[in-house]
Amino acid sequence: MSRARIVALGGGHGLSASLQALRHSSDDITAVVTVADDGGSSGRLRQQFDILPPGDLRMALAALCEDTTWGHQWSAVLQHRFRGDGELGGHALGNLLITALWDLLPQQEVRGLDLVGRLLNTRGRVLPMSLVPLDIEATMVVPGEDGDGGRVMVRGQSQVARHPGRVESIRLLPEAPPACPEAVESITLADVVVLGPGSWFTSVMPHLLVPDLLRALRDTPARRVLTLNVNISDEETTGYSAAEHVGAIVAHAPGLAFDHVIADPRVVATDGDRRDLERAVDQLGASLVVTTVGKMRPQGVHDTLRLAAAYRDVIAADQT
Amino acid sequence: MSRARIVALGGGHGLSASLQALRHSSDDITAVVTVADDGGSSGRLRQQFDILPPGDLRMALAALCEDTTWGHQWSAVLQHRFRGDGELGGHALGNLLITALWDLLPQQEVRGLDLVGRLLNTRGRVLPMSLVPLDIEATMVVPGEDGDGGRVMVRGQSQVARHPGRVESIRLLPEAPPACPEAVESITLADVVVLGPGSWFTSVMPHLLVPDLLRALRDTPARRVLTLNVNISDEETTGYSAAEHVGAIVAHAPGLAFDHVIADPRVVATDGDRRDLERAVDQLGASLVVTTVGKMRPQGVHDTLRLAAAYRDVIAADQT
Repeated sequence: MSRARIVALGGGHGLSASLQALRHSSDDITAVVTVADDGGSSGRLRQQFDILPPGDLRMALAALCEDTTWGHQWSAVLQHRFRGDGELGGHALGNLLITALWDLLPQQEVRGLDLVGRLLNTRGRVLPMSLVPLDIEATMVVPGEDGDGGRVMVRGQSQVARHPGRVESIRLLPEAPPACPEAVESITLADVVVLGPGSWFTSVMPHLLVPDLLRALRDTPARRVLTLNVNISDEETTGYSAAEHVGAIVAHAPGLAFDHVIADPRVVATDGDRRDLERAVDQLGASLVVTTVGKMRPQGVHDTLRLAAAYRDVIAADQT
Repeated sequence: MSRARIVALGGGHGLSASLQALRHSSDDITAVVTVADDGGSSGRLRQQFDILPPGDLRMALAALCEDTTWGHQWSAVLQHRFRGDGELGGHALGNLLITALWDLLPQQEVRGLDLVGRLLNTRGRVLPMSLVPLDIEATMVVPGEDGDGGRVMVRGQSQVARHPGRVESIRLLPEAPPACPEAVESITLADVVVLGPGSWFTSVMPHLLVPDLLRALRDTPARRVLTLNVNISDEETTGYSAAEHVGAIVAHAPGLAFDHVIADPRVVATDGDRRDLERAVDQLGASLVVTTVGKMRPQGVHDTLRLAAAYRDVIAADQT
């Protein structure tokens, strides 16, 4: 295993898939995680304790648990949600563990997460992208009687996810929040930086709207990898093509170059799709790597070992 | 360190103190824990999920955490209670961890606790005394205008603790509950069995009212140690003498003999107290060990190292 210093940016299931795959390439992994969730267990904890939403951080920690029976058991326990609709119903145990550490170490979010990592003996490190709890505001194109019906502003990650239509652009509230200093440092010192996969506008894009993170991503000597989703058209991105996903990155982070863009063949079903994606990837200055990284079933999610192989190949290509 | 197989029976802070002290004598320790709590975090979880009250089990697990920085950190996290009066307010993180494991392994309380133990790398094992959630009903003597005012029945451990007066006797509901089979087995195979310290009627005595446990305690070839409280007169036992504590054991578990009774000198302040206690200890067939086991400050609680020394001495005395 190489000791490449890898930073993976994202949130939710997409980041979790990326982290599980990257573990095959290195055990020096830092996850930089969105902190804009406002729904479910995270939303309740955020409101009750005035803390960062812990859910995406917990998923990253679970993905980095030891690859032993002990680690797999901890991972399952962290992810376990209490049943019922009582006071605990819906809370993931890992969210409560993170909240407890922050309660014990107030105003020390990074120390609290590092301590959770030590208690669970996780590989690597999990950091929030900002120490300020954020909200997402999206401009959405809603369906009309014939074609696009107009634009609406939707506020809150959970609202964006369930609102009909597709996201055109997003903003963070507060705007231009400060980055977590340790996250900036990790990007600056990285050998490889990976953005995506994940909910494109609410888990992947937010990082690019934190000015210190965008600057660090632009300035780092690390190789930059963009991983597209396998399910290119989800509830946020109804009707979006793979090329439009890349286009959204260009639009939200002008001047940010990448070295590699990893895409599953299924997202470029036609020759036209493929040509469009190649053109968009050119704009990023990147090489396009089309290789099967999706699961056979269920479709629409990344296969850990195939994604691990793709990461290993692009990392190795850069080192020779 | 000897490999004596030690079983400690009790609940709450008393059992926790005993376990921490016994770790100095052996790392083969089994805690057998009361499951009659109905207040606070345990009461809420018991009601919401129809489970054993986890609080006393969590305290025992915390007491058996590794004696390393890592173990001490886990112990503190398990014991941490969420602040505020929201949906999480008052819950101890360890109670939620136990509840999560029982949620993952329904109807397998012992397996769930063993798994928590493995996840935390605790020394020894923590078992419930019964797999049935229990309630305590106490006959209390309440203060009257001059002297005793009469007897009342009080139901529920939390009610007994806060009701004025002193406990005269207790019953379990349901009566004569089945013991946890692994708890019976541990007593049968033990070298040393320790009962107390702890809230005398609600943490120590309940074990004697589980017929299988009482039988196992009577029949085991193990040496039996009874540890009296340092604060002999608490909210349950206002005005009780040390001799009356021993007398309550005789009354609730006729025919159960002990080898040693450990008492702090402060509980026998006068020669009369001492003579009364000696007489009561005789009834148990035990030798009385009067040695300082209380903390200098705060008074009223056991000092781990002094109690460890007392346990070591009585265990060593039996082995020579």
